[in-house]
Amino acid sequence: MAQNIYDKPDFFAGYSQLHRQVHGLAGAAEWPAVKSLLPDLEGKRVVDLGCGFGWFARFARENGAASVLGLDLSEKMIARARADTFDPTIQYRIADLERLDLPEASFDFAYSSLAFHYIEDFGRLTLSVFRALVSGARFVFTIEHPIYMAPSHPGFVIDAEGRKTWPLDSYAQEGPRVSDWLAKGVVKQHRTLGTTLNALIGAGFAVRHVQEWAPTPEQVEATPDLAEENERPMILIVSATR
Amino acid sequence: MAQNIYDKPDFFAGYSQLHRQVHGLAGAAEWPAVKSLLPDLEGKRVVDLGCGFGWFARFARENGAASVLGLDLSEKMIARARADTFDPTIQYRIADLERLDLPEASFDFAYSSLAFHYIEDFGRLTLSVFRALVSGARFVFTIEHPIYMAPSHPGFVIDAEGRKTWPLDSYAQEGPRVSDWLAKGVVKQHRTLGTTLNALIGAGFAVRHVQEWAPTPEQVEATPDLAEENERPMILIVSATR
Repeated sequence: MAQNIYDKPDFFAGYSQLHRQVHGLAGAAEWPAVKSLLPDLEGKRVVDLGCGFGWFARFARENGAASVLGLDLSEKMIARARADTFDPTIQYRIADLERLDLPEASFDFAYSSLAFHYIEDFGRLTLSVFRALVSGARFVFTIEHPIYMAPSHPGFVIDAEGRKTWPLDSYAQEGPRVSDWLAKGVVKQHRTLGTTLNALIGAGFAVRHVQEWAPTPEQVEATPDLAEENERPMILIVSATR
Repeated sequence: MAQNIYDKPDFFAGYSQLHRQVHGLAGAAEWPAVKSLLPDLEGKRVVDLGCGFGWFARFARENGAASVLGLDLSEKMIARARADTFDPTIQYRIADLERLDLPEASFDFAYSSLAFHYIEDFGRLTLSVFRALVSGARFVFTIEHPIYMAPSHPGFVIDAEGRKTWPLDSYAQEGPRVSDWLAKGVVKQHRTLGTTLNALIGAGFAVRHVQEWAPTPEQVEATPDLAEENERPMILIVSATR
């Protein structure tokens, strides 16, 4: 059973105030890059793994998707997604991605945003997604980048010469990383980038694109804090084909 | 024209004394991992891009390859490879990988060890390799890992709490990195891991395996200095199929 930190009051309150939860997809700096990797959604049966407030589900329908199934472990998120959605072709369901079990060949596109770094058994998950997709279907997801997750003490440091660096260590040591983000004791699962890609390939996917997200110069000009994303990637974007 | 640092007397002298040049393939800690990704070489026409002293060329022939073409920019390395090889089916040639031009569909396997981080136009190179291979052929190479190459000041640091960390910065800033390794002013070309993989995919290769090399516990026990390779990867191993 996956850790359900999301329904803890402090986590949920903090999560609800994140820029990307208040402003939706456009509030996420990596969204333009993710969007450019999406297939044409027209007529597609979409599954969103870790749908949160349902922002992507609604986007998919606005862009022609035939139906969307949004899954999330959090009761509160699913309740909020349902409250914000007025579209009978979008269904939301509480589900543990560690035990994902979808009907075979029932989706034309699978999507996930920043959920898989909470998953312990990523190999099992990719096999489930592979089976749930029809042949030729695309799978696009974002995940916290392993460079961001690996360190025993994540957080930029300023060295004696005033240089801002990211103190990487423990990269090869896969497994849980406990951090205090919105709530105390949030457990994330560090995997090397190689392990993530090899799980996809092992399940039968063809890797199409791997992007270690960094902001554009225009984004840095508009939001100077984003400059630090050029020092070390925080978000990994992957596109694969079944 | 690629920088030919390799023929500078100080570089060549230092290079010749590297453990892996004195002891051959077995002197490279990542070799067991690389070897496990090699296809059956029986009867294969092999090209080795950046063949150095010819260690892999001779290994390939000892393992059944029909022929090997070893390419290197360095006259001194090619001279040494020729002097150490007594096998008319192994050919060595001085060649600049930036301008690689091989006959179409003339090889069954392409290999490269720690040469591609010197290459500026990796996209052009991968296209050339793709054309030179027959359909279904494997391409296995190692390259310095971008985490290792990116920093403006590479080298472990010990923080105030005594922790050894790798000061990552500039990861998204692709392009030359100048270091003093064996000789002053060695120019390497940093690319993100995503860029390297996308170049392969763009050329038409299917990525089969991505390994951010780390030592086994047995290797660390035998050579304790290798433990730091667990903190940040130095070597990336990629296997792809044409």
